[in-house]
Order: sequence, then structure tokens, then C-alpha cells
Amino acid sequence: MDSLAPRANVARAIAAAKTLLGDRVSTAPAVREQHGKDQTWNAGAAPDAVAFVNSTEEVQALVKICAGEKVPVIAYGTGTSLEGHFAAVNGGISIDLSGMNCILEVNSEDQDCRVEAGVTRKALNAHLRDQGLMFPIDPGADASLGGMAATRASGTNAVRYGTMRENVMGLTVVLADGRVIRTGTRARKSSAGYDLTRLLVGSEGTLGIITEVQLRLYGIPEALKAGVMGFPSVEACCRTVIETIQLGVPMARIELVDAETIKAINAYSKLSMPAAPHLFVEFHGTPAGVAEQAGQFADIAQGHGAGAISWASTEEERARLWQARHDVFWATKSLMPGKEAFATDVCVPISRLAECVVETQKDLAESRIYGPIVGHVGDGNFHVTLYCDRADAGEVARVKGAYGRMIERALSMGGTCTGEHGIGSGKRAYLAREHGEGVEVMRQIKLALDPDNIMNPGKNAGP
Amino acid sequence: MDSLAPRANVARAIAAAKTLLGDRVSTAPAVREQHGKDQTWNAGAAPDAVAFVNSTEEVQALVKICAGEKVPVIAYGTGTSLEGHFAAVNGGISIDLSGMNCILEVNSEDQDCRVEAGVTRKALNAHLRDQGLMFPIDPGADASLGGMAATRASGTNAVRYGTMRENVMGLTVVLADGRVIRTGTRARKSSAGYDLTRLLVGSEGTLGIITEVQLRLYGIPEALKAGVMGFPSVEACCRTVIETIQLGVPMARIELVDAETIKAINAYSKLSMPAAPHLFVEFHGTPAGVAEQAGQFADIAQGHGAGAISWASTEEERARLWQARHDVFWATKSLMPGKEAFATDVCVPISRLAECVVETQKDLAESRIYGPIVGHVGDGNFHVTLYCDRADAGEVARVKGAYGRMIERALSMGGTCTGEHGIGSGKRAYLAREHGEGVEVMRQIKLALDPDNIMNPGKNAGP
Repeated sequence: MDSLAPRANVARAIAAAKTLLGDRVSTAPAVREQHGKDQTWNAGAAPDAVAFVNSTEEVQALVKICAGEKVPVIAYGTGTSLEGHFAAVNGGISIDLSGMNCILEVNSEDQDCRVEAGVTRKALNAHLRDQGLMFPIDPGADASLGGMAATRASGTNAVRYGTMRENVMGLTVVLADGRVIRTGTRARKSSAGYDLTRLLVGSEGTLGIITEVQLRLYGIPEALKAGVMGFPSVEACCRTVIETIQLGVPMARIELVDAETIKAINAYSKLSMPAAPHLFVEFHGTPAGVAEQAGQFADIAQGHGAGAISWASTEEERARLWQARHDVFWATKSLMPGKEAFATDVCVPISRLAECVVETQKDLAESRIYGPIVGHVGDGNFHVTLYCDRADAGEVARVKGAYGRMIERALSMGGTCTGEHGIGSGKRAYLAREHGEGVEVMRQIKLALDPDNIMNPGKNAGP
Repeated sequence: MDSLAPRANVARAIAAAKTLLGDRVSTAPAVREQHGKDQTWNAGAAPDAVAFVNSTEEVQALVKICAGEKVPVIAYGTGTSLEGHFAAVNGGISIDLSGMNCILEVNSEDQDCRVEAGVTRKALNAHLRDQGLMFPIDPGADASLGGMAATRASGTNAVRYGTMRENVMGLTVVLADGRVIRTGTRARKSSAGYDLTRLLVGSEGTLGIITEVQLRLYGIPEALKAGVMGFPSVEACCRTVIETIQLGVPMARIELVDAETIKAINAYSKLSMPAAPHLFVEFHGTPAGVAEQAGQFADIAQGHGAGAISWASTEEERARLWQARHDVFWATKSLMPGKEAFATDVCVPISRLAECVVETQKDLAESRIYGPIVGHVGDGNFHVTLYCDRADAGEVARVKGAYGRMIERALSMGGTCTGEHGIGSGKRAYLAREHGEGVEVMRQIKLALDPDNIMNPGKNAGP
């Protein structure tokens, strides 16, 4: 990681930015702090200033100013990142894109749209609803679509609709030297040249700042059916998932919630589910198709010892079911007052998922750590929230040890250290463990495009 | 494009290659020519030698030899490329990977596999069949999976299963300096670092030589149903496709065959379809699901004036239906003895497809060119085969003019100059038209990873 930019350069960059944007550049401590620290365990670092931009041209002008002074630029969307992505570890200017919130075009016949980077997924879906369209990627938080692209986000229904990798068709990006490129086309596929779109998706602001996103859309399904059921073991849940996917049942969502988490949900939402691992599932399609899928799934689940399936019979019940799933963080946190949450995000081949979860649970028990587990099991991705008292050095050490072992376990099973949260500043040590020499190739690309390392330094594969 | 490598360097490289591989290095003129010229209009260029390799280590050793002598290396799979991808325009050594034909592992529970680059898609599918699995990407030719990855291939069922972009999970690649990297993991998704897999998919051997491919697999569907029907116009076909996709019917294949091509199929395969635009369709799913999809599709097609749908009632009839579609090239070619075929491959948003096809047909009629059309219409991708007598300078000029206008038309509609064939040496002039400044970024990446431009020079975005 480079050292901080010289103070004189920073001062000149801020002055030039103020000339450009007037009072849309702030150096107020509260604004700077808010733009440098996320909601997680990761250390924050306030930028020297925050610039609130309204257009690609403004981003371009700011980047040119910062490039001239070799001052870092860090993109900021809604601040919902979980891996310290926007901490200004070398100082510099945070570019807040939340004001770039225009939906530029919706092409309903082609099922695609183009939005400015600050549009959130919920705002887009509200806009699309009366055209019968939806953008399905749902990471939980109401994140900006630029931020979701930059971190290669996914969530509960990636098993059916893919991640940002599959659903970003093109981008407008401001590069480190102020050039603006537009990647991709509106064609559904192309073999023309290197896939810059997918190189930039997941690059976490280290190769350029995303200002516009072209997205693939989907028709809102005619029918949706959701249900929840308990299982005798995590293995039984995973066997059910594997068989369901092997049979080709197009699951829209299939989520594991472990027994510890169920207990927390029961307490938080005043429910009385048995304290056992559960699957939360959803099917999308025609009424007949959904009924058939649900029947196929139920047969498989019962073959693995599932209890009775509680189907949501109304849209309100379906919403309540997923609300309980989305509230897991608050449900578990409320059992651990005073402790901080340490997010984890490994992803393994689904054939190894049960083993990975069970070994992790055993490790946590032996390490005396409270770590409830939920998983996007159709993708082999699960999250353990490790609760930790930062003042308790012993617990901090135990949590860090278990965290490292969990990643090593996932990598040894052919998996990845992060399914959807990203590398940010938090997981850089694991990138080389996972990709070996490939990280050096990533670094070569980074330095070819950003030789002065001004784009979000200290993150992902960059120096 | 660089000039040819100095002869002395080439001679030293060949001598070192022979020391390494013995009689698996050939300088026989027939072998060299076969490895330098594809079946198309594009000019060929024979390499100085051909090396038949058996392992990643051998590719690595060869690349190190060539890097030391600054001699080009060009990967060769099955030679079915349509854009002059393997023409040795600067000379050098062709690395024939067809001997790397081991299926390294099949993970049926995870529905993935790892193969050496020379395994063909048909060989893989034959191997997978008794496990109930398939690899669906079908570009027509029995191409090698390494070549399909390198060119970002797709074909008739990309509308359902995606292209190589979506189905390659990871790669083993030998880089220009002889480093070997392994990209991706066996996890279904990952946010760890830059997406080197997708940067390399479609890079056409200009960034590295792919020696192993990790692929996503699918269960063979329980039921398949295929049919064919005529329409009053190309617009009616396209409206049918748009409505079908909007309704969310998961088409496995939906292919446009224009009236000219139908006439050729009738003559070639002794059929008697009406001389009108047709759609060839296929549905995959459960028996009930397929029946429902086919019914939904039929209602939409009939609303747009389709004639009676001829459903294949047996597996043999289904095979015959697709054989007629796959024979289109030979059917049309047999009507044009002595003429050469000039392949085209534009792809546009499907809302613009009818307009693009109709304007193209009008242009061809006015230009007095025989240009039958087939299209993967669910993706907005279509191929016109332009027949041309190379000895007729006037016809050559008319064909080249129509070809350029077709690409300009597609680009002006938000499309791409190539949906699935690639850039190769044939479409380099159009890459900058399509991507503007982005091509300069591609070039920066190329030169960062291959500063001496030894990896397949003169192709794609490279110099």
C-alpha cells in the first residue's frame, strides 16, 4: 500500500474540486467519517473530502484533477459494503454517486435497462413494476446498482438468475487518466474483443469508477410460491438441494438457516419453528409450473426427512417469510448485546457444502464462538456471523483463528474466500492463497491502467 | 502488426522445440498449411512449424522457447474457426492441442467438469451421457472446448443455457512469459479479485494459451420437444420470439430460417416446406412443463399468422429436424457451385431484429447477392452467408460493400459486429467502430501481459 498523498497535493485537488462543484464538495468531519467507515468490523479511514457528483462528466473532471495531483479517488454508493471497500486508507477524495439516480432507459421488449450508478435496486424495481419487469439480484441491502456491479454482488436468488457477473450487459466507466469508456452493447451476446465489462464488474473501484450500468431484466413471474421446512440435519438440507438441482428444478431461492439462527428468529419474530436446520424456498413460473416444481421439491425433501412444509398461502405470508430470513442479522445481534458482528462469506462446490458447514459448526463450538449460519445453498455460499467482544482479546483471537480456518477449509474444498461480499481491504491476504500467480496478473492489469494507483488504493488486487 | 520474426530466431526456436518434442514437431508443408488456413474467405498464413503437445508443461516449455526468441505462438484446436483465428500472419509456431484430449474429472453432484483443451464438445457429451449430464453449448462444428472458450462460442441453445462466457468456470492458461495460471474455482460464484476467466474467454489466444477448461454442466432434460412452422414474414417470426421471451417461456432453441434458405433445404433434403420464413424451436423440461411451454408458444405463433406446427414426434424426427437446420450451409452452397462463402455474424437487440434482417435482405437484393439467412433469434444473432465468385471483381466489391453496411447497421441499432464467431483477423477494423476508446484499453492489457506480442499476433485487440 502506498503512503498518503502529500498534503499540498490533496489541498490543491480539493480546491480544484470546489471550483468545479462548489458546495457539493464537503470537508466536514461527519461527512468524511460517514464516507470512510462501513457497518462492519473492518477499520474505517475517512477521506480528505467528499464530492457529490451529478454526471459522468463531473466524475471525469474530478478524476482528472486527482490524477494530476496523484490523489486517490474512491467511489461511494450507499455505503452498504461489508469489506471496507470505501475506506480511504491512503486519504483522497470520496466520490459520492448517490445523486446519479436517473433511470436512463428501459427497453421492455429487449428486457434491458440503463441506469446511473447511484440508482438503488429497490428504486429500479419500483420503476419497473408497472411494466411487468424486475431486476432480481437482491443482496439484502438496498444497494446502488453501481456498487453492486463494482463488488459483483448477488444474494438469495442468484441460483436462478445469476449474479451481477451474468446480469450486467455494459458499463460507462471513468478510468484513472480521466478517459471515459463505454463497454458492452445492447446485444445479448458478443464475441467482439476482450470482455472489459466483466473485468470491471468486481474490480471494486480499483480499475475505474462506474457511472452507468446496462442491466438485463426479467419478466415478473406469473406465479410465485414460497415455503419453509425443518430437517433433521444440515446434511439432509444439502442432500435435498443437490438432488433438486440435479433434477433440474429451477429453484428461484433455496436458503439454509441453521438451528442457532432459527432459535434467534423465533425469539425476534415471535415464531415457534422447531430448533432445527431449515430450508426457505421459492419457485417462479406459471401456476402449473410452480405447482409441479413445488411437488417435485417436496418429494425430495420428504425423502431426506423434512418436516411438514409450511407454504405461504398469500403474498403477505410470502413477504413475512422472507422478512424473517432478511431479519436474521438483527435477530442474532439482539441475542448478543455489546458484541460486534464479523461477516464471513465462503462458497464451496455444493457437494462439499454439508461437510464445510458441519466442520465449521464444530470448530465454532470448540472455539466457544457464537456463529449463526445462513446460506445461499443452491450456490454453495454461506455466511457465518461471528459475534465478538472487541474488548476481549481472547475472544478476538479465537474469532480471527476460526475465520482463517473457515477460509482455508473452503479453499481446500475447491471454493472461494468470498462468494459475494468481495475482497475490499478485509480479505486481501486470502486473494493470493486462492489465486496464486493469478494475483500477479491482476496486479499487472491494475498497474497498466492505473500506474499511479489512485483508484481506490489498498483494495482488491491493487497495491 | 509486427513484421515477421527474424529467420534465425525462428530456426533456433524450431530446433529447441524438436529437442523437446522430437517428431511431434513438424515443418512439413502440408501440415503447416493445414494449420494456417481455415474453411472461410479469410486469407491463411502457414506457421513455420507445428508442435503437437500432450500437456500443459509442454505448452509452457514451448512458450518459454518462443518467448526467448520472440517468435509467435498460435494455439490450434480443431481448425473450425470462421475468422482466420489461427492464421500465422507473423509466422511462428502453431501449438496443436488436439492431443490434449483427456476428460480430467466430472463432478456429477456439482454438475461441473474439467477437461483438457483439445477435448471436443461431442466427445465430452458422449462421455457424460450415461451420467445423465450434458454440456449444451453447440456452435455447430465439433469444436474443441479450448477453442470454444478462446473464441467465446455459443450457438443454437445459448438462449437457454448462455454462451461460453456463462459456462466456463475456470481455466488453466500459459501466459506469454511461460507462467501458468489457474483461474476460477469450483465454486458457482465468487467475488474474489478480477475476473481473469472472463477476460481470457474470448481473447482468441492473444493473452495466453488455454490448456484446461472447467465447465458448468446440466442435467439432460427429462423431456424434449421440437417443432417447425412457417410465418407470413420475418417480422411475424420476430414478434413471436419477443412475445415468447417476454412471457418467460424458457425456450431451449428458437431459430429463424429465411425463405431463401428454406428453398435450399427443400432441394437439399428433399422436403417440401412452404417457401416462407420459418422458426425451428425446441423445449426442455418435464413432460408437463414441455407440453405447457409448447402450448404457450403455439398460441403466440398462431397469433402472428404461423402455419401449422410440425412437431417431431420421435427422437429420430427431432434429430432430422435439427440436421436440416445444421445442413443449411451445405444446402445453400450446393446451389452456388464455384462460389465461396463469406460468413457474417451480427447480433442486435431483439426489438431491432426484424428491421435489421429486412433491411439486410433489401440491401442484398439491390446488390444482387445471394445471401441466405439463419438466426439464433432468441439472442438477436443472425448469419447471412454471402456467396461470392472470387474471380468476379464486381461481385467481390458488392459483397464487401454489403458486408460493411450490415455491420454498420447492426452497430447503429445497439448491436455487435460478432455475436459468436469472434474478431480474429477478419473483423479487426470493426472492433474500434464498436468499442471506441475501449479498444485502447484492451491494447494496454494485451501489452502489459505480452509486451513482445508473441501470443497470436495480428488478432483481436492485439497489435
